[in-house]
Amino acid sequence: MTDFTRTKAMFDLPEGVIYLDGNSLGPLPRAVGTRVQEMLNDEWGQMLITGWNKAGWMGLPTGLGDRIGRLIGAEPGSVVVGDTLSIKVYQAVASALEMNPGRKVVLSDNGNFPSDLYMADGLLRSLGPDYELRVVDPEEVAAHITEEVAVLMLTEVDYRSGRIHDMKALTELAHANGVVTVWDLAHSAGAIPVYLAGCNADFAVGCTYKYLNGGPGAPAFIYVAPRLSGQVRPALSGWLGHEAPFAFDLDYRPGAGIERMRVGTPPVIQMTALSSAMDIWDMADMADIRARSIELTEQFIAGVEATCPGLELASPRDPLRRGSQVSFRFREGYAAMQALIARGVIGDFRAPDIIRFGFTPLYIDKDDVEQAVEILADIIANRLWDKPEYKIRQRVT
Amino acid sequence: MTDFTRTKAMFDLPEGVIYLDGNSLGPLPRAVGTRVQEMLNDEWGQMLITGWNKAGWMGLPTGLGDRIGRLIGAEPGSVVVGDTLSIKVYQAVASALEMNPGRKVVLSDNGNFPSDLYMADGLLRSLGPDYELRVVDPEEVAAHITEEVAVLMLTEVDYRSGRIHDMKALTELAHANGVVTVWDLAHSAGAIPVYLAGCNADFAVGCTYKYLNGGPGAPAFIYVAPRLSGQVRPALSGWLGHEAPFAFDLDYRPGAGIERMRVGTPPVIQMTALSSAMDIWDMADMADIRARSIELTEQFIAGVEATCPGLELASPRDPLRRGSQVSFRFREGYAAMQALIARGVIGDFRAPDIIRFGFTPLYIDKDDVEQAVEILADIIANRLWDKPEYKIRQRVT
Repeated sequence: MTDFTRTKAMFDLPEGVIYLDGNSLGPLPRAVGTRVQEMLNDEWGQMLITGWNKAGWMGLPTGLGDRIGRLIGAEPGSVVVGDTLSIKVYQAVASALEMNPGRKVVLSDNGNFPSDLYMADGLLRSLGPDYELRVVDPEEVAAHITEEVAVLMLTEVDYRSGRIHDMKALTELAHANGVVTVWDLAHSAGAIPVYLAGCNADFAVGCTYKYLNGGPGAPAFIYVAPRLSGQVRPALSGWLGHEAPFAFDLDYRPGAGIERMRVGTPPVIQMTALSSAMDIWDMADMADIRARSIELTEQFIAGVEATCPGLELASPRDPLRRGSQVSFRFREGYAAMQALIARGVIGDFRAPDIIRFGFTPLYIDKDDVEQAVEILADIIANRLWDKPEYKIRQRVT
Repeated sequence: MTDFTRTKAMFDLPEGVIYLDGNSLGPLPRAVGTRVQEMLNDEWGQMLITGWNKAGWMGLPTGLGDRIGRLIGAEPGSVVVGDTLSIKVYQAVASALEMNPGRKVVLSDNGNFPSDLYMADGLLRSLGPDYELRVVDPEEVAAHITEEVAVLMLTEVDYRSGRIHDMKALTELAHANGVVTVWDLAHSAGAIPVYLAGCNADFAVGCTYKYLNGGPGAPAFIYVAPRLSGQVRPALSGWLGHEAPFAFDLDYRPGAGIERMRVGTPPVIQMTALSSAMDIWDMADMADIRARSIELTEQFIAGVEATCPGLELASPRDPLRRGSQVSFRFREGYAAMQALIARGVIGDFRAPDIIRFGFTPLYIDKDDVEQAVEILADIIANRLWDKPEYKIRQRVT
């Protein structure tokens, strides 16, 4: 059993703050500062260039990949960490496209995170006018999976509503039509159990600064199914994905398996912080996380619906179809969220009228949820956003 | 005048080490640990998601870009920091290619860093069989600049020999033939004065973990000439290069000027370390750096040639044609470098027979060079690498 009292004590949250925005940026684990300081002084400072071997820096991308892989149902040796999520989306879609020569359509939905769409659009425009990014409503994705489609690119959990796509069913349908799948797990990894191997997924990508608590700008990850990784020609073919990076050959030869999805020099300081954050995840079981997450979101929805008139649930009511976040539509959502933040309850706002709350059992408990509901109810009942002391500005990622 | 005694005191170098490998990985500036700790505790820990605005994280890529820009002769607002150098090479070459529709050849040389060639090759292969990466000898580049060429992609300072390409002359020749230029400044930025604006360069890229001392895996930078940046369609079109990232529009619209070359969420911890390292550069003048660098490399070459028989200079003898590094060919170079490292003089080895030394005036002085020569002479004279206590392993980037 995951000991949530113990995990909560491992985070350093500010006094008086109830942090329901771990789905945007996870909070600071207490151990990160000491670990990063050790890395700076004892590794970079003392080992200098030899830290790449002596301190194991060169192995961080695959070592971290395996630890994340456990949380998303990936086979050992199938995940590698590096770059940003946008870059990994590009790499996955471009690599997947090459596996389907002759097909020119990438299918996605309008609930996808915009950067995924931008990256795919930019890629397809560079490949020529025959290529098409086809964006449909989330409910219509299945109907558009045809033999015309090369790649299906979806974010499993909708960043606004928390709606979960059925990865297993859509992947099966995709494969039946010869379509290669790319799953974005930005709001899945550490939020809900994911079964990449069990779903027979092809490519997946995700970020580590949300539920995994790797810190602002923590690197992304990419998964390639072991049955594919030996034959993929990696897009973004950088030297650290080369079979022998330090031979300095003029010609590119892809490295073994997932190693070929590495590109440039890994951000060691950032990866050290992430590694420390993953120590907490090593103590957690995704089944426990999911059970607790459902309890918290159910408690929050029930509390808000009982006390906050005017707020309309924008997330699926069925907890099995919902990620670890809850969103409500509210006409004055932006102003209300500002007031809420001023009162120490941190969620975020997504245009045009969505207020969004992330529930992260590693450090959020039932008392937090109860308090958050009370404060939100007070703000709504008294329209506190009209009072000048609650007008603050916010911008979130 | 740059006060080199003062700058040297700002680095934390291990006792007994003469570090001549700052061209691979710069050493730890003393202030970085404290600054990173502040960022972790006071920014990430206390501000959480609001750090993107309150702590100025969102402005780090352009703020750092301007500070680097001063060292490379770039106009204010023309440089942005992010990603790895391999990714920025890809972004620059892909964006440059689009400016020359109809032309299909990227010209480079076999002295270029292999990852640049790999990234360009991967890009061109994805664009189709008509595209060609043409790789010639460095001395033959000028002769191959023709109206067939779309993009000239060169590393200004050769990573092995330190040979400097004539950026001004080659850029002029390129423009006369309608060729767009991409300059890799990995071994130039902080090593030699660079005049991007003065040379009328189009695109440039570089890394910050070598001479700039940003730390292992510190992010890269990209330059786009202001006369071009408003019309470039950026390859790798991510959300933070969007005109309004937080509008979450489904369609991509490039941001103003250099902002459009941003891609994903910036690595804030890594950028904080780089920002602290740049505080030292803010005290330095590139003309002073260059003058001191030439003194040190001339001293080293004279010393080695007088005392180390069998070593053959592999760098240009003319200091004006040489970067801030010196390389020698030596048949037993790998073994000799291992012995040298065991004696506290850290340089590196590049296959097949190059031993390479970087000279970094911010923290290396004449006494260091004198000692390094003495130790190298002792090793060569006594073939110390044959003794078992000197056999250590090394791998470098």
